[in-house]
Amino acid sequence: MHAIDTANEQAFQRMLAGDPVLIDVVPAADAIPQLKERMILHAGPPVEWNRMCGPMRGAIMGVAVFEGWAPNLDVAADMAAAGEFEFHPNHHFDAVGPMTGLTTLTQPVMIVENRAFGNRSYCTINEGLGKVMRFGGNDEEVRARLAWLRDVLGPSMAAALRELDGVALKPIVARGLTMGDEMHQRNVGCSGLTLRAIASSMASTSSDSAELARALAFIASNDQFFLNIAMALGKALMDPVRDIENSSIVTAMCRNGTDFGIRVSGTGDQWFTAPVEMPEGLYFPGYSEADANPDMGDSTIVETIGLGGFAMAAAPAVAGFVGAGAASEAANFTRSMREITHGENPEWTIPALDYAGVPTGIDIRYVVETGLVPTINTGIAHKEPGIGQVGAGVVRAPMACFEAALKALAQEIGVS
Amino acid sequence: MHAIDTANEQAFQRMLAGDPVLIDVVPAADAIPQLKERMILHAGPPVEWNRMCGPMRGAIMGVAVFEGWAPNLDVAADMAAAGEFEFHPNHHFDAVGPMTGLTTLTQPVMIVENRAFGNRSYCTINEGLGKVMRFGGNDEEVRARLAWLRDVLGPSMAAALRELDGVALKPIVARGLTMGDEMHQRNVGCSGLTLRAIASSMASTSSDSAELARALAFIASNDQFFLNIAMALGKALMDPVRDIENSSIVTAMCRNGTDFGIRVSGTGDQWFTAPVEMPEGLYFPGYSEADANPDMGDSTIVETIGLGGFAMAAAPAVAGFVGAGAASEAANFTRSMREITHGENPEWTIPALDYAGVPTGIDIRYVVETGLVPTINTGIAHKEPGIGQVGAGVVRAPMACFEAALKALAQEIGVS
Repeated sequence: MHAIDTANEQAFQRMLAGDPVLIDVVPAADAIPQLKERMILHAGPPVEWNRMCGPMRGAIMGVAVFEGWAPNLDVAADMAAAGEFEFHPNHHFDAVGPMTGLTTLTQPVMIVENRAFGNRSYCTINEGLGKVMRFGGNDEEVRARLAWLRDVLGPSMAAALRELDGVALKPIVARGLTMGDEMHQRNVGCSGLTLRAIASSMASTSSDSAELARALAFIASNDQFFLNIAMALGKALMDPVRDIENSSIVTAMCRNGTDFGIRVSGTGDQWFTAPVEMPEGLYFPGYSEADANPDMGDSTIVETIGLGGFAMAAAPAVAGFVGAGAASEAANFTRSMREITHGENPEWTIPALDYAGVPTGIDIRYVVETGLVPTINTGIAHKEPGIGQVGAGVVRAPMACFEAALKALAQEIGVS
Repeated sequence: MHAIDTANEQAFQRMLAGDPVLIDVVPAADAIPQLKERMILHAGPPVEWNRMCGPMRGAIMGVAVFEGWAPNLDVAADMAAAGEFEFHPNHHFDAVGPMTGLTTLTQPVMIVENRAFGNRSYCTINEGLGKVMRFGGNDEEVRARLAWLRDVLGPSMAAALRELDGVALKPIVARGLTMGDEMHQRNVGCSGLTLRAIASSMASTSSDSAELARALAFIASNDQFFLNIAMALGKALMDPVRDIENSSIVTAMCRNGTDFGIRVSGTGDQWFTAPVEMPEGLYFPGYSEADANPDMGDSTIVETIGLGGFAMAAAPAVAGFVGAGAASEAANFTRSMREITHGENPEWTIPALDYAGVPTGIDIRYVVETGLVPTINTGIAHKEPGIGQVGAGVVRAPMACFEAALKALAQEIGVS
């Protein structure tokens, strides 16, 4: 297996060498020229309308109205059922999206450039909490917010980022790990650091103080603002790791609310999927497991780079929020993820573990050998369209994905 | 000793009941009408020019030039030596100041109102790192920054705070404790939360986008911006606890670089002083213990309310910064401070300790009985005027203060 170890070390070193910088915000169509009318990118591996979960359908109905492809939600649903929309995973177009994760023509996307390798990744701007499209919300309030992100906040952030020549993201994550963030279910530190990084330039490039005030207030009131940035960062870090011959390192994990999918470096862009699992967690008042949709979103790209559930030791407050036990036991999650990863990231360290690095580079061999699957911190959406988030929890990646990937890798290498 | 326990419980409950709100920024003379020309408030217990340490003298020379009382630093020193300035502790005028802690007529002070009791406290705006007056800096650069704080940042913050009707501070501290802050040597979380709270209102009340951009950048670039707010908060929380008959709870701890002083509730406004100790810590490159000034500043009011060294468990990254040992051992400091405090604060809790509250209400009886003095996280100033910060460390409050206070309290109660 020496060839695999060598390939994995190369994959690991590419991950560490990455230099992701948030450089711009542009309409999705400018970043992804293949986008066209009635084409919708979604979270997770490929899925068609008839297999999509409730919130994914709800979001698609909403975005079709938002983009002007349908006059109302009912017509949008009929059009979707009639095959009038084209669906593709974000991952097929250098993009990622949280929960339903829809990306369409006019939505603003943040651009993260990996300056060590030259590749770019894209993610929409986080909409905040409550009724939002990523959790399947689709009403007028949801669409009006999307329009404001497109018309005001996106351009305001873009002007600031251009003036700054971008904001380097590795130092923000490094600092966030000392501030109780794990960058999946807790981004309060990194969201504040991002505001600190761009607020002044947003002011100096603004000509309308009322709009500026609203833009600053929007970012300031959203503890998860950084999540979408962390996701684009994750995608930008992992894309240069795709397609290293013999490597058993996971390059993407994602879910569409129906299937969980992973990609592995040595097997290129092939998806290995299995039915997605239900998160175990805590529910907001008035909701229970009976309301929950199965796990969803491209956000687990952050676990793929050693954050989220892998960095739980940095975020004891998250352990309680996601119902994963006592805060003082958060470190156990991180320790356990060391058993399935290639190494530790020397730049992303956890003070409470005396600056041990986050467990980095999921090796499918170790997953299958140990029986330990990646721990993922996740939000929980209501299973019906239009309602939104109902809780947060921990979910395990399905073992079947890793077993199938290992079998395929073995065949690829010729050792099956 | 039942009367003491009852009095201490009353003191403790008053601390918990406090509701400190950052409400405004005004010239010091507007907040403290007793201030007048050539009158200088300083950190710590009373001290005269001939006993003042180097950085305190340096700061006084600088502020005399800044206020227009002397044409240059040399003349200022001569005037000080000739008794032409009047010196008083900040604590005698509802104020606190970090390190040298000077408060004079025209400097802007932030106002924290304890809305549960109606009292107010004052503290200047944090100047940032590097060459600053609180560490004894006094040159043109230092004075120009003070002028900008007075003319631009202070009024900008004031307008925002008035529009917001103030910013409640207890929730910010509560959140900061989940973000790796202990509010003395680490305020990165709370500084970001404060920017989040006021940035939008700073924008909506600003008419000059270039000045606004500079103001936002100043706050955003200062990890210790919140320290001075935490200090005013501490003073506002503790002042209603002063002068409870029979109480052995400490109401203030502070240092002027020469003496350490404490006040105890049952003995009112009497100072109990002892020579201040040298911090043990880590030095910035190029400096060593030989350069260090003894401990200085009113900032240890934050330990008086259960933060700083008392909340070290919340801030494992601080343990390394102040040279207090391994990050994973930070919790030991908090545990040890439980032995000298009346109780735990149920609103200010530490995730890593499974949400135990910070040790609150220093009881001088326990200090003397156990031989454990309060642990204080502190910055270290160069001993010569005009240089600035050279390190950070941990310092112990001198036991002699507590012994003298206990003796006085016993006499007061009539049990000596």
